[in-house]
Amino acid sequence: MAVNACYNRRVAEAPRVVVLGAGFAGLHAVRRLARASVPTLWMDRRNYHAFLPLCYQVATAGLEPQEIAYPTRSILRRLPSVDFRLTEIASAQPRERLLVTTDGDRIAYDYLIVATGGCAQDFGIPGVRDATFGLYDVEDARRLRNHLLRVLERAVVTDDPDARAALLTFVIVGGGPTGVETAGALAEFRRHVLPRDYRRLRNATMRIVLVEAGPDLLPPFAPRLRARARHDLEATFHVEVRTDTRVSAVTAGGVTFAGGEHLPTPTVIWAAGIQASTLAARLGLPTGRSGRLRVDATLRVVGEERVFAAGDVALVDGVDVPQLAQGAIQGGWHAATNVLRARDGVPLLPFRYRNKGIMATIGRSRAVATIAGWNLVGWLAWCCWLAVHLVMLVGFRNRLVVFVNWVWNYATYDRGLRAILGASPPVETPPAAQTKTGSVP
Amino acid sequence: MAVNACYNRRVAEAPRVVVLGAGFAGLHAVRRLARASVPTLWMDRRNYHAFLPLCYQVATAGLEPQEIAYPTRSILRRLPSVDFRLTEIASAQPRERLLVTTDGDRIAYDYLIVATGGCAQDFGIPGVRDATFGLYDVEDARRLRNHLLRVLERAVVTDDPDARAALLTFVIVGGGPTGVETAGALAEFRRHVLPRDYRRLRNATMRIVLVEAGPDLLPPFAPRLRARARHDLEATFHVEVRTDTRVSAVTAGGVTFAGGEHLPTPTVIWAAGIQASTLAARLGLPTGRSGRLRVDATLRVVGEERVFAAGDVALVDGVDVPQLAQGAIQGGWHAATNVLRARDGVPLLPFRYRNKGIMATIGRSRAVATIAGWNLVGWLAWCCWLAVHLVMLVGFRNRLVVFVNWVWNYATYDRGLRAILGASPPVETPPAAQTKTGSVP
Repeated sequence: MAVNACYNRRVAEAPRVVVLGAGFAGLHAVRRLARASVPTLWMDRRNYHAFLPLCYQVATAGLEPQEIAYPTRSILRRLPSVDFRLTEIASAQPRERLLVTTDGDRIAYDYLIVATGGCAQDFGIPGVRDATFGLYDVEDARRLRNHLLRVLERAVVTDDPDARAALLTFVIVGGGPTGVETAGALAEFRRHVLPRDYRRLRNATMRIVLVEAGPDLLPPFAPRLRARARHDLEATFHVEVRTDTRVSAVTAGGVTFAGGEHLPTPTVIWAAGIQASTLAARLGLPTGRSGRLRVDATLRVVGEERVFAAGDVALVDGVDVPQLAQGAIQGGWHAATNVLRARDGVPLLPFRYRNKGIMATIGRSRAVATIAGWNLVGWLAWCCWLAVHLVMLVGFRNRLVVFVNWVWNYATYDRGLRAILGASPPVETPPAAQTKTGSVP
Repeated sequence: MAVNACYNRRVAEAPRVVVLGAGFAGLHAVRRLARASVPTLWMDRRNYHAFLPLCYQVATAGLEPQEIAYPTRSILRRLPSVDFRLTEIASAQPRERLLVTTDGDRIAYDYLIVATGGCAQDFGIPGVRDATFGLYDVEDARRLRNHLLRVLERAVVTDDPDARAALLTFVIVGGGPTGVETAGALAEFRRHVLPRDYRRLRNATMRIVLVEAGPDLLPPFAPRLRARARHDLEATFHVEVRTDTRVSAVTAGGVTFAGGEHLPTPTVIWAAGIQASTLAARLGLPTGRSGRLRVDATLRVVGEERVFAAGDVALVDGVDVPQLAQGAIQGGWHAATNVLRARDGVPLLPFRYRNKGIMATIGRSRAVATIAGWNLVGWLAWCCWLAVHLVMLVGFRNRLVVFVNWVWNYATYDRGLRAILGASPPVETPPAAQTKTGSVP
């Protein structure tokens, strides 16, 4: 309790807002509150805001984790009314307006904004939680990079052709932008890095399989762009695209499709959608589809007076908010605006999503984008993609170093950030023994 | 056995050299052998060559681990006669000229160069292995950085003044270049980053204590430089320097000095010297002081015909080789030269260490250096330090990004790489409860 005194002292002074989550929604909620000089406590279990759309580049050794992670405390330099606390929330007592941290501290709030994001959607498919690699977190990306590099090292010393074929099979599940971008980045790694740095694998076949349950890749894009993306992936990058294909199970030894076919591989990358993080349920607030918090059109949680939610964790009643950075940015800002209006006793405003465009990159000089109603492909779309992503990064140093790395990667065709760093959980050791027992259909 | 066949095939063709270790000694041995086009197998338990003199900057959030780690496979692009294998060695059978990996594979060699480096020297002091942080490995540096950042986050929410004082006490043991550079970097962090990013700690006292068992810091330097370094540390950077002070025990709760004084702190950084890694003993070769392999003046292991050793792992008979990058670089090159001479039946050459100079940086624009007999201090020494370290980095991309980061850090006084990344071993959680029970003497 003593630890928490410094936070509770403030409650007497002015209504205090607590923002949970340092993603796009949390960041923009905090910025909105800081502009109104509202005493705000920002909390996250990580000490940084991460730019998740570039996770796939971290996973494929093109960028460093630190380059897409910006310390929350550095953001607060210009926001004097905001304080940050690194902690995890164990539970909540909405009636008493209290949060309980995993350390046992109790944090009081007058208004709460929940922006805790999501994790991979498993659709109840066995093995997804334990045997796949995600891309919804910088730690996920780091873990996937280490796994990919270890798999290649294992393949180098494996003479058994079946085991080597399994090790060199990379399956990506999910045909949205994350899946498409990851497949493209792996294909570029295969084309440019493998022949130079893994000479023993020069004549081996590395398979990249992109699996989508629906009939087409990149569903929100116009048909012309979808066709172009698929053509680029298949004809130029030699990615095996399998649409209308459902996954029925994943194990450490491979992936099984709904038709019964089994593909032996230690690497299944899961990019099939997002569900709310487990925290949403622990807060004791009403949840809907995919465990997301049910919020009304003003982003207030259903049945709560002082709790709002935004970003991937929120399921907005009657508004279709895509689970993209833009949805979270606009939602976080709007939730904070409505907190200010609730404090002032002014009627809340309904949230309206403004679609600023969608884009997905496939590889060097290849992307698709829809911006302000214009459909772009190829080099122009790719330049737009680069510019938008550079501008959205927080912190000038990060922008500079990402830019240097992109220029470097473009000029040299290299992916140089390949040191395996960090403790390795057991899942990272590819199960060569198991893959041997699998059979290629 | 099957896995290993691809390596053993070569044995029939030409004498094959195995080099263990990807540090400075291993790297330069491999480069020497590649110049003579000798079939070489290079092995390490990491997949990168690390530039360890800059570990302290990684630990203090000034550089990224990847910037001082260069993938071994990228080095091999220009060395076609060399192959790399990521593995750990379990044991050796010198009579059969075989190494056994932890996977159970047996690797045959005609000549072996051991360059497996060292780890922190514990002098038998209890607690050093488990309760201190080292700087002899990129993983060490990453772990220390995460620990420092967590300690600060803990201090922010701690109201108990004794516990906070303990959390904000940083003890560095060892007054050589590593200890001096770490103390200086921590002092700069305290001066420039703490007031901006940890506003609650603005009026708290962060203590930095540099402990040296001998009578003076930086023993190999000239007296004038030693005095200057000590003056800079004490007067400019407010580091508490304690010479003639021995540590008798370290626990997770603090450090105890020989006189009985106890200093409560969760952070003891151990930079008091190097002993050979445990691998040296496992190889079944003769070891001497600090577990290092005993080698004669030609760098051949005593009693062995085809085994050489260089770098921190080697204890050279009759030659005083300092445990610095230069000693390892020259030793690795020389060991490889003598392997070539042994192969050709030519008499081996004795190793002579050429002292190219020594340098240590204290902080921005402050360093001491002795180069070619010239003693330099201040700005000039600091520029030399920067230039030498940039040039010694492997890989142009690393040089470029390190340079960008240095310019950035210098211009902004910032240390921006403060995202806590990677799985956290239990030791990283500062033992606040234990520090409370300790008493400041």
